[in-house]
Amino acid sequence: MIELRSDTFTLPTPEMIRAMSEAALGDDVYGEDPTANRLEELAATTLGKEAACFMPSGTMANLASLMAHAPRGSKVLVGDESDIYIYEAGGASVCGGIVYEPIPTQPDGRLLLRDLAAAFPADPEDPQFALPALICLENTHNRCGGAILPLEYLRDVRRFADERGVPVHMDGARMFNAAVGAGVPVAEIAQYADSAQFCLSKGLSAPIGSMVVGSTAFIEKVRRLRKMLGGGMRQVGTVAAAGILAIENAAALAEDHRRAALLAEGLARLDGIEVAPQDVRTNIVMFRVTDERHTWQTVAEAAREEGLAIAELGHGRLRAVLHRGLDDGDVNEAVSIIGRVVKSDPRPLAGHTMEV
Amino acid sequence: MIELRSDTFTLPTPEMIRAMSEAALGDDVYGEDPTANRLEELAATTLGKEAACFMPSGTMANLASLMAHAPRGSKVLVGDESDIYIYEAGGASVCGGIVYEPIPTQPDGRLLLRDLAAAFPADPEDPQFALPALICLENTHNRCGGAILPLEYLRDVRRFADERGVPVHMDGARMFNAAVGAGVPVAEIAQYADSAQFCLSKGLSAPIGSMVVGSTAFIEKVRRLRKMLGGGMRQVGTVAAAGILAIENAAALAEDHRRAALLAEGLARLDGIEVAPQDVRTNIVMFRVTDERHTWQTVAEAAREEGLAIAELGHGRLRAVLHRGLDDGDVNEAVSIIGRVVKSDPRPLAGHTMEV
Amino acid sequence: MIELRSDTFTLPTPEMIRAMSEAALGDDVYGEDPTANRLEELAATTLGKEAACFMPSGTMANLASLMAHAPRGSKVLVGDESDIYIYEAGGASVCGGIVYEPIPTQPDGRLLLRDLAAAFPADPEDPQFALPALICLENTHNRCGGAILPLEYLRDVRRFADERGVPVHMDGARMFNAAVGAGVPVAEIAQYADSAQFCLSKGLSAPIGSMVVGSTAFIEKVRRLRKMLGGGMRQVGTVAAAGILAIENAAALAEDHRRAALLAEGLARLDGIEVAPQDVRTNIVMFRVTDERHTWQTVAEAAREEGLAIAELGHGRLRAVLHRGLDDGDVNEAVSIIGRVVKSDPRPLAGHTMEV
Amino acid sequence: MIELRSDTFTLPTPEMIRAMSEAALGDDVYGEDPTANRLEELAATTLGKEAACFMPSGTMANLASLMAHAPRGSKVLVGDESDIYIYEAGGASVCGGIVYEPIPTQPDGRLLLRDLAAAFPADPEDPQFALPALICLENTHNRCGGAILPLEYLRDVRRFADERGVPVHMDGARMFNAAVGAGVPVAEIAQYADSAQFCLSKGLSAPIGSMVVGSTAFIEKVRRLRKMLGGGMRQVGTVAAAGILAIENAAALAEDHRRAALLAEGLARLDGIEVAPQDVRTNIVMFRVTDERHTWQTVAEAAREEGLAIAELGHGRLRAVLHRGLDDGDVNEAVSIIGRVVKSDPRPLAGHTMEV
Repeated sequence: MIELRSDTFTLPTPEMIRAMSEAALGDDVYGEDPTANRLEELAATTLGKEAACFMPSGTMANLASLMAHAPRGSKVLVGDESDIYIYEAGGASVCGGIVYEPIPTQPDGRLLLRDLAAAFPADPEDPQFALPALICLENTHNRCGGAILPLEYLRDVRRFADERGVPVHMDGARMFNAAVGAGVPVAEIAQYADSAQFCLSKGLSAPIGSMVVGSTAFIEKVRRLRKMLGGGMRQVGTVAAAGILAIENAAALAEDHRRAALLAEGLARLDGIEVAPQDVRTNIVMFRVTDERHTWQTVAEAAREEGLAIAELGHGRLRAVLHRGLDDGDVNEAVSIIGRVVKSDPRPLAGHTMEV
Repeated sequence: MIELRSDTFTLPTPEMIRAMSEAALGDDVYGEDPTANRLEELAATTLGKEAACFMPSGTMANLASLMAHAPRGSKVLVGDESDIYIYEAGGASVCGGIVYEPIPTQPDGRLLLRDLAAAFPADPEDPQFALPALICLENTHNRCGGAILPLEYLRDVRRFADERGVPVHMDGARMFNAAVGAGVPVAEIAQYADSAQFCLSKGLSAPIGSMVVGSTAFIEKVRRLRKMLGGGMRQVGTVAAAGILAIENAAALAEDHRRAALLAEGLARLDGIEVAPQDVRTNIVMFRVTDERHTWQTVAEAAREEGLAIAELGHGRLRAVLHRGLDDGDVNEAVSIIGRVVKSDPRPLAGHTMEV
Repeated sequence: MIELRSDTFTLPTPEMIRAMSEAALGDDVYGEDPTANRLEELAATTLGKEAACFMPSGTMANLASLMAHAPRGSKVLVGDESDIYIYEAGGASVCGGIVYEPIPTQPDGRLLLRDLAAAFPADPEDPQFALPALICLENTHNRCGGAILPLEYLRDVRRFADERGVPVHMDGARMFNAAVGAGVPVAEIAQYADSAQFCLSKGLSAPIGSMVVGSTAFIEKVRRLRKMLGGGMRQVGTVAAAGILAIENAAALAEDHRRAALLAEGLARLDGIEVAPQDVRTNIVMFRVTDERHTWQTVAEAAREEGLAIAELGHGRLRAVLHRGLDDGDVNEAVSIIGRVVKSDPRPLAGHTMEV
Repeated sequence: MIELRSDTFTLPTPEMIRAMSEAALGDDVYGEDPTANRLEELAATTLGKEAACFMPSGTMANLASLMAHAPRGSKVLVGDESDIYIYEAGGASVCGGIVYEPIPTQPDGRLLLRDLAAAFPADPEDPQFALPALICLENTHNRCGGAILPLEYLRDVRRFADERGVPVHMDGARMFNAAVGAGVPVAEIAQYADSAQFCLSKGLSAPIGSMVVGSTAFIEKVRRLRKMLGGGMRQVGTVAAAGILAIENAAALAEDHRRAALLAEGLARLDGIEVAPQDVRTNIVMFRVTDERHTWQTVAEAAREEGLAIAELGHGRLRAVLHRGLDDGDVNEAVSIIGRVVKSDPRPLAGHTMEV
């Protein structure tokens, strides 16, 4: 099976497996796992922040970050196409008593400053309004096809946030893709956010985990929230060992980007498929079935039967995510399969699933 | 001062004051206030529902209704221009662990079925999605200028909701205005909603209170939530007595509607003011300052100095709300004041406030 | 019916009714109700605090106070026999994400400092512990028979709280009873608490409402929370007018205390009844049925049939609450009825209710 | 260092390390990790339940279970000495809007039925009471020295809960210790609970994870909540592989129990130490320092300097937890160290920590 549904399907590399077997371990709830501590130091340093905290998932990384920034009864401004708003089960409202205010997302992943500004009430004394306490950005932007937020834009949001006195959190699940894609150190991106999270278990291909980075005081709050949410784990070093290698080898993501471009170009040559290769900046390719006999469902199901897994990701678009588990041959084969499927008449649908 | 900021400024009528003085009283927390009980029966009967519960405010009426319908972790679908979403401080997220999903509001106050449908995830088994548990409508619609939702539309939403297996709550703060404006009994409107709330203290001019109506089982839940939120009060009959008269004399709202039309026609004759008299169906007139020397702030401030109180209500529009405390002379005077103000050069701003 | 179930059954006095009819009114959500404003100033001044806020109920007064003091995820230390813990439906956990930690209540209503101290974890850095953010006292203490907390005790708690850096909130639903009973100005009691609430609608006999007092900054938070919870009401002056008289005439509570003593002495002379007249300091008399043929249920039901309403209040004790609606003759008659009932054989039970 | 602070310090066995390296992996968020699926089936079968769900920690296992059973605004009855109440940061109040009602814990870990009964209000219709929705038991009981709840007691609680219509959740963090200690299959214990959680990462010595078991419908809710809380992880098989061996080799816990008895007997022979060897049923030994020159702090610190780690666990008692990482020599050495320390004069304290 050529697995293009997500880069979360990446398996740990043999080096990771070995490192995991040999890792020095301790009880991380007591703060005594040396490998987890080493990973946290590496993450903080690499992102240019004071401190970091290991998390079982990106969802918890975002949830604890939102709760650490935003008090009960405040609003967090999130993109209406953001993963935080759409795919994280409303955790900040449930666990934090926080209101999500979805802000229109531009096709390139940006939230316009004037749209952010409109979320701040004219009269903050008026008790009928929940008050904004946090701005969240997503970088790269998943539902915007892996778009990289421009550095100048980040600088503008930073200035805007400072003027308003609210912090900025970056959902950087694929932040290293942004850094590699833009050709800058990841710290140059992270500098514009008060806090950020990135996933070790997506393109970086560690099996488990995400890192939150920020100031020492912020990370202390996050660590307390992690315990309350149930993210405090024991011999974390077993998985942290893979995380260290994931960060050290982040440059390898460039290969995924190259293959995503290759895939987009291949798809662009097919009839019945709409894709914009020039918008493919990182490891995600969004495309649409325009052949009227087909829907995304018929294409996804037929492709699966031919050995290619792809999935829908909002508004009827198909998403293909490149990652370390694939080579150029897989990309070419994927193009062939989609080409064949779209050319054929659709078969009746058996069922479908929809995942991030 | 000609008070056009809101119909919440209405004072109780002399008949209400007398009824309040003479009301039979008891402890409503024990369910022993006869006047409160009479009001609840009257409200239920009038709206055609099994039961009703007195509430200190429309905010609590909506909050308790949302919490009674929607479990922790679910979504409520609310208009992005609705009072529930904008002016109620995010209470459902804070107190209920509920996610607000704002749905685009049409200029006439409707939420399109296809926009509602988009809020239901394709795969409800997928745990990354919060699931819709309630559809909220607002009728009349405050920020849409007192628009009345058409009965056919209500029927469509009812059918849609039944297909999806979710209930419908109507924020009918000004629901009697809708009934009077449409010339139908209020129960004909309420029949399409599982629950509704209406305010006794807006155009109906009682001093305090709102009523929630619905099934007996629903009202039991609401009553329990009312106690928890702190809305259980003692000799409620003192204010309920006014509420009874408010409902019995609801037909008088027609006068407010006539005067709102009068005001809109007057404003339409002014240069520098944009208003759509044909859209004025109930007691609210929305208008815009188009004279480039002015903003809504300069007009509102200058009008206040001349004895007319008006306020902004979203997107820089001014809102004038007609109510029992005003007569035709006030309306004519209001038009004159605004005319004079817009003709004059603006004075420098001192400050401003923004309220519902 | 001689109503001894609660002082919440008090009806407004004729002076109150008149004041309510004549009150100057405005929209209190806009802060423009002059009578409500006057009541808030009077409450603040009388309690010796910077500011006050009118609330629809004591439950909301406590809930908003707890939420204003205690952030999400913190603990409030409350007596295990306190009304906040037992009778307020867990609102602080639901709406505030706050943990109640019940502390053993002494028979005289005090929470021992060493029991409070035990609720502070040895290592506040350890994320497995929720941290105390507030100490709540109740004065007079309802389930401790209207006990008055000694001033020296309040001073000790104040010092303890200052050392620990947590504020103190006083649930003073019957705080004026404490002041009258102890013969001190109520401000002398309130000085030891950062915030307090008292009910206008218990012995003070206003129909509706409670007041929260505290610092200006605290009351601003409370006012914001009041709106969110749905406690913002419109022409509040209609009920606030009674509240002003309630405070001004608080000294009249002394009569209730005298009659409570009278009742306790009368009951002490009865066989089959256990009561401690020396513990009756304010307007509450707790007693127990010791005649083995009877239970509290049989006595309460039989008394009701003879025209006397009393109710259970925890641990099988009966509570009788004196208030303005009663005179000495009622007290004597109540003793006679209970005497007759206990002497007789019990009738079979029809049902029972249990209320505060 | 002889590590007796907790069995959470256990390291994975070489067999576990090997299994982790060789595990078949997939994305568990998509339900496609074959090893995680195998572990869940094994856990369900072993406990005699329909289904199971892997969790990153016991804290999340309990939190999700409480939220799945208890709706917003309900009470969970938990022991006042239970880990859920004391060491889990109040998560159910924060994330679930649930009230904890702590019930007195007997020295043997039981909650008396009459104490549980007292938490059910006489009148469940009365809205001032939060209503019980769940009974939680802890087995073995940590702060009661690893006590095993008797099967007859579990049967009684089951019957009581059925009568009241509330479910039972067992915090069985060390439930396999209970089974091995009582000499019964773990399913014989689990049968009395609707749901249970047990930790793979305590005495069972897997590095990470806990399992929740229950009915299929319950586990579906738990799985949904896991995603919201941030416990959905990717290549879970890496750690689940160790969990499978942990369950398969649970019988080895008997060695820890034997050594705990050995330790207790050794300590019983020391002057200045109070311990009850007859109460040591599983792998936990609680003891007290009675030598008046010492406190638990002086003993713990001095022992640490001599190579023995022990910690306080409530009420000034020291806890020693036996586990796979220790042999008989360690136990004898631990006794020697404590004996030497208590005989010596205490040194001045440097600092201390307190952990579970």
